[in-house]
Amino acid sequence: MANLKAVESWLAAADKPKVNIKVVLEGEEESGSENINAFIARHPERLAADIAMISDGAILAPDQPSLTYGLRGVTALELHVSAPVSDLHSGHWGGSVHNPIQALCEIIAQLHDENGAVSVPGFYDDVAAVTAQDRALLEKVEPFMQAEWDDVVNAPAIWGEPEYILPERLGARPTLEINGIHGGYTGDGMKTVLPARAFAKITCRLVPRQDPDRALNCVVEHIKRIAPETINVDFQFGGMGAEAVLLDVDGPAMSAAAAAYTHAWGVEPVFERAGGSVPITFECMKVAKEVVIMSYGLKSGRAHGPNENIYLQNFSNGIQSTIKFIDVVGENRG
Amino acid sequence: MANLKAVESWLAAADKPKVNIKVVLEGEEESGSENINAFIARHPERLAADIAMISDGAILAPDQPSLTYGLRGVTALELHVSAPVSDLHSGHWGGSVHNPIQALCEIIAQLHDENGAVSVPGFYDDVAAVTAQDRALLEKVEPFMQAEWDDVVNAPAIWGEPEYILPERLGARPTLEINGIHGGYTGDGMKTVLPARAFAKITCRLVPRQDPDRALNCVVEHIKRIAPETINVDFQFGGMGAEAVLLDVDGPAMSAAAAAYTHAWGVEPVFERAGGSVPITFECMKVAKEVVIMSYGLKSGRAHGPNENIYLQNFSNGIQSTIKFIDVVGENRG
Repeated sequence: MANLKAVESWLAAADKPKVNIKVVLEGEEESGSENINAFIARHPERLAADIAMISDGAILAPDQPSLTYGLRGVTALELHVSAPVSDLHSGHWGGSVHNPIQALCEIIAQLHDENGAVSVPGFYDDVAAVTAQDRALLEKVEPFMQAEWDDVVNAPAIWGEPEYILPERLGARPTLEINGIHGGYTGDGMKTVLPARAFAKITCRLVPRQDPDRALNCVVEHIKRIAPETINVDFQFGGMGAEAVLLDVDGPAMSAAAAAYTHAWGVEPVFERAGGSVPITFECMKVAKEVVIMSYGLKSGRAHGPNENIYLQNFSNGIQSTIKFIDVVGENRG
Repeated sequence: MANLKAVESWLAAADKPKVNIKVVLEGEEESGSENINAFIARHPERLAADIAMISDGAILAPDQPSLTYGLRGVTALELHVSAPVSDLHSGHWGGSVHNPIQALCEIIAQLHDENGAVSVPGFYDDVAAVTAQDRALLEKVEPFMQAEWDDVVNAPAIWGEPEYILPERLGARPTLEINGIHGGYTGDGMKTVLPARAFAKITCRLVPRQDPDRALNCVVEHIKRIAPETINVDFQFGGMGAEAVLLDVDGPAMSAAAAAYTHAWGVEPVFERAGGSVPITFECMKVAKEVVIMSYGLKSGRAHGPNENIYLQNFSNGIQSTIKFIDVVGENRG
């Protein structure tokens, strides 16, 4: 706890903040964040701010701070395929019925091309291009992400759009993912059933400028178009929908955050785009002119899991960089 | 029960059989037939016969008797696809990993062509051709099968190899069927998992001359060939394997059976090929020179289900045709 002594001296040395500070604590993030968004929406005037600073997430490595300037959005659907009116004996009827599992697989196989791009017409229409600045920023992140991929994913080979580097595939490009599939008999041994139905759960990660409803509609219309007349398709919509977020890397809040990280770590932060979502970001963008995500976890910190932890050096560097951030913002406004 | 009176008078009028009769009763068919095959295999000399008559199955309709001259065989496998070492967050890693569900679907989509034929090299190599005689016989069955398809299956459209009529697709052509599939999250709502693995259960119905092991091997080798290097594939084999059966439509036993049905029903039987298997047939073929399947059920008889039933007219016609069959066989041997 030697770090806490340092914290005490920083606090003693720090001036009184030159800015007003409003603190919102979220205590329900692991149980669905039922109230925080509504709370912010209910108090737009009390919470109005120049900058909202969110401290959810992780930096790249203990000795390499990072700032997140993009989050992917998400949309979801369930695809149901049915054909015969009830489960059948595959001996009696096999060869005369388009097996719903097979038909579902044939549809899913037409949702990506051979390079891993989503082959849904219109899906990429509104996608914000990966810029030269994105590439320059994300190239610095690549070695860290590749090391983590090797450690955490460790599939036989990397996959995805070959013209994009790993951090772009993970943060700057949209995806279509099959999250679950079920049909027929899946217990021990064999049952020669020709099932009446099968379904898959599908989510798309979205990037800036993609409208969740429009992206979802592209997928639905594509599936309707390719579905053969030998089967029925039905859709269920789960209400999961969020737009992607892109924060201004060159904005004053982000610059202040970068200066603060550099001060605390002695190392300039790199800028990354996260593949997941931080839903609170959207509500914060409604009440604050700028949003910055200053994370202090590590990806190895077992977020939401047993033995969740924060690296002690990140804890003290976090306090130090937060103090510095408030200083810099105050001076900028001074 | 007026029919029983008729039965009594037939029995009274019938001569003493001119052939020896050995009766084997199977009482375990609904609980897996654990002992009957072994029993026959243990007593080849006691059970040696010129003709084995099996009365399992159903005729086409109460006023249209039918004789089954073919049964399909079967072989089975489980296909497992895996990629990342554990389930992942689809937001964090989606776009960089070949999703095992997607990869499994892409493999399954390459097991049939657009006409419903199995697109596995070598799969049809040994398949006995559908002959002109088959076509002539099975055309007579087609209207009955189509009516049953409309009633029992009732899918949006019929499916399968367009150059074969329905009774050929169901009895004379091999199939590859997906009996079950599972991967990822399949409960209520959505979980944005990118699963580590997915699997499918697959069976092939086989026709005469196809060796179950060879057919299975063709499927396995095809899948290994098309599986991309971004995933792992593994196979499990369930031990389900049976050759198809083709009985001689023009043989003396079948001719006697046809004469017996015509006598009892006043209508000549049609000849059909069943899509499923009657496993006892194989053992019977080892102890008897000829096998004939004389069925007296109806397809609406709820075989193996609640309220299983036999149509009374079939019951009395069955007794009458069995008496006639024994007569004809005896006279032929006279």
